[in-house]
Amino acid sequence: MIQLSIVFHSGFGHTKVMAERVKAGAESVPGTQASLIPVEEIEAHWATLEASDAIVFGSPTYMGNVSAPFKAFMDASSKPWLEQKWKDKLAAGFTISGSPSGDKLNTLQSLMIYAMQHGMIWVGNAEMPYNEEGINRLGSFTGVMAQAGQVAPDVEPNAADRKSAERLGQRVAAATARWAKVS
Amino acid sequence: MIQLSIVFHSGFGHTKVMAERVKAGAESVPGTQASLIPVEEIEAHWATLEASDAIVFGSPTYMGNVSAPFKAFMDASSKPWLEQKWKDKLAAGFTISGSPSGDKLNTLQSLMIYAMQHGMIWVGNAEMPYNEEGINRLGSFTGVMAQAGQVAPDVEPNAADRKSAERLGQRVAAATARWAKVS
Amino acid sequence: MIQLSIVFHSGFGHTKVMAERVKAGAESVPGTQASLIPVEEIEAHWATLEASDAIVFGSPTYMGNVSAPFKAFMDASSKPWLEQKWKDKLAAGFTISGSPSGDKLNTLQSLMIYAMQHGMIWVGNAEMPYNEEGINRLGSFTGVMAQAGQVAPDVEPNAADRKSAERLGQRVAAATARWAKVS
Amino acid sequence: MIQLSIVFHSGFGHTKVMAERVKAGAESVPGTQASLIPVEEIEAHWATLEASDAIVFGSPTYMGNVSAPFKAFMDASSKPWLEQKWKDKLAAGFTISGSPSGDKLNTLQSLMIYAMQHGMIWVGNAEMPYNEEGINRLGSFTGVMAQAGQVAPDVEPNAADRKSAERLGQRVAAATARWAKVS
Repeated sequence: MIQLSIVFHSGFGHTKVMAERVKAGAESVPGTQASLIPVEEIEAHWATLEASDAIVFGSPTYMGNVSAPFKAFMDASSKPWLEQKWKDKLAAGFTISGSPSGDKLNTLQSLMIYAMQHGMIWVGNAEMPYNEEGINRLGSFTGVMAQAGQVAPDVEPNAADRKSAERLGQRVAAATARWAKVS
Repeated sequence: MIQLSIVFHSGFGHTKVMAERVKAGAESVPGTQASLIPVEEIEAHWATLEASDAIVFGSPTYMGNVSAPFKAFMDASSKPWLEQKWKDKLAAGFTISGSPSGDKLNTLQSLMIYAMQHGMIWVGNAEMPYNEEGINRLGSFTGVMAQAGQVAPDVEPNAADRKSAERLGQRVAAATARWAKVS
Repeated sequence: MIQLSIVFHSGFGHTKVMAERVKAGAESVPGTQASLIPVEEIEAHWATLEASDAIVFGSPTYMGNVSAPFKAFMDASSKPWLEQKWKDKLAAGFTISGSPSGDKLNTLQSLMIYAMQHGMIWVGNAEMPYNEEGINRLGSFTGVMAQAGQVAPDVEPNAADRKSAERLGQRVAAATARWAKVS
Repeated sequence: MIQLSIVFHSGFGHTKVMAERVKAGAESVPGTQASLIPVEEIEAHWATLEASDAIVFGSPTYMGNVSAPFKAFMDASSKPWLEQKWKDKLAAGFTISGSPSGDKLNTLQSLMIYAMQHGMIWVGNAEMPYNEEGINRLGSFTGVMAQAGQVAPDVEPNAADRKSAERLGQRVAAATARWAKVS
C-alpha cells in the first residue's frame, strides 16, 4: 500500500477543493491511500508525513509566495529536515490565486526548493495544455496552478482546474508506486 | 530629452508588437524619444544603449526562459557590464508565450536579475488587474506578460495586452523623467 | 528629509545586525532618517511605512525562503497593497543564511516580487565583487546576501557582509534623495 | 544497463570538468553507462538523449542564467518536447560561476523548469553541507553549484566541488536504476 499525504493551507476553501481533488486522483490509482493534512493540524501528523511515500504540498499564493501559515509549517519541518527523514520521498505541489498568472510560479519554485532541501524527488505536472478539457489551461509544469476569484469554492476553481489537480494526484501516485517497487 | 531603448527579440512578430506598444506608450510622455533595437542588430547599437536613460528588455518565453537569441545579447553585454556602463539606468521587461502563465515569471525574473547585475534600477508593472480594459489581465507585476497563440501578430497579443505594454512604456518614461531631473 | 524604513525579522540576532548596518549606511547620506521596524512590532508602525520614501526588507532565509514571521508581515500588508499606499516608493532587500549560497536568491526574488506587487521601484546591490574589502563577496545583485553560522551575531555576519549592508543602505538613501527631488 | 547522458556547455573548460565528474560518479554505480554530450555536438546526439534513462544538464552561469549556447540547445529541443519524448526520464542539473552565490540558483531553477516542461522527474543534490570534505559547501539543493575564478580548469573547480559533482552523478544513477526497475 502506497501512503501519500497532502499538506495544505486553505484560507477560504479554494485550496482545500484542490487538495481534495489531488486526493481523489491519487486514490484512483489502485493501492494508494491518501491523507489530507491541513497545516493547522500539523502537530498531530508529523508521524504520518514520516510514514508517507510521497508528500504533495499545496498553498494559496499570497503576495507572490506561499501563505504565512504554510510557511510556518515549512519552518516547523526543520526537525525532520535536520534528520533528513523525508529523503528520497516523492514530492509535488499546487497553488491557486486570483489571476491567471499572479506570480504563482514563485510559490511553486519555493515549494520545489523546499522539497530539494529535504532531499526529495520532484514530480511535476506533465499535462500538455491546449486540450479539450482545459487541463493545465494556465500552462504550468513545475506543479499545478489554479485560479479562483472572489467566489465560493464550489464555483471556482473550475472544472478544468479540478481535473488538473486530479491528474497531478494520479501522476504522483503512479510515480510513487513505480518508485517504491524496489525498496 | 529622455532617451529610452527597447531591446527585443521576436521570433514570429508577436514580441515586436509588444515592443512597438511599449515605444508608443513611452513616447506619449512629453520629452521622451524611444528606440526599438532588435537583438539581431545589436552590434550597431551598443552606443545607443550606453546613451540611453532607460532600457526595456523584451523576449518571448521559450522553454520557460528568455529565447536563445535574446540570451546571446545578454551574454554579449558582458563588456558594458564589466565597465558598469548601464549603472543607475532604469530597466523594465516584458514577455509573451502561448499560455496564460506558461512559466513567464521565470523570464521576467531572469531579466530582472540581469538588470541587477548591471546595477540598474527596476521598474515593474504597477497596474492593478481586474479593470474593465483587461490591463494586466494575467496578473504580473515584475514586468508585463502577454499571451499569443498560433495566430498572426495582428490578432494576438490582444487589445488588453497591447494596452498593458503601452502602460509599461508610459510608466518607465515617466519614472525616467523623474529620475533624470537630478543629474 | 528623507524617511527610510527597514522592516526585518531576526530569529537569533544575525539579521538584526544587518538591519542596523543598513540603517547606519542610510544615515551616512545627509538628510536621511532611518527607522528599524522588527516585524513583531509592525502593528504600531504601518503609518511609519506609509510615510516612508523607501522601505528595505530584511529576512533570514529559512528553508529556502523568507521566514514565517516575515511572511506574516507580508500577508498583513494586503491592506496598504489594496490601496497601493506604497506605490512608487523605493524598495530593496537583504537576507542571511548559514551557507554561502543557501538558496538565498529565492528569498531576494520573493522580496522583489512582493515589492513589485506593491508598485514599488527596486534598487539592487550594485557593488562589484572581487574587491579588497570583500564587499558583495558572495556575488549577489538583487539584494545583499550575508552568511552566518552557528555563532553569536557579534562574530558573524563578518566585516565584509556588514560593509555590504552599509553600502546597500547608502545606495538606497542616495537613490531615494534623487528620486524624491521631483515631487 | 542504465543509460545516462550529460548535456553541457563549457566556455573555458570549468563546466567540462564538472561534467566529467558527474560521469565518473554515475559510472561508479554498477550497470550505468554515461555519455558526455557538448551542446556544440548536439545534432549528432538527439537519438542518444531519446534513448537515455536520465539526462543531466550542465551550464555555466553567465549574467545570472544558462549560457546562450546552452539556451540554444534548450530551444532546439522543442521537437522532442512537442512529442514528449523525454517524459518520465530522470533529470538533474549543475552550474558554475565566479562567485560563491553569483545568481546560480536562477540557472538551476531554469534547468528545473525546463525539465518540468519535458515532463521529467527532478533529482536534486541531497548532500547536507558542513561536512569534512566540503561537499555541497555552497549550500545548494536544486542541483550542484560550483565556483571557479579566472584560473585554469585543473585548479578550479576545487576538490570539494568535484566531489559534489561525483555525488550528484552517483545519486542520479542510483535513482535511475531504482526508477527503471519497473519498466
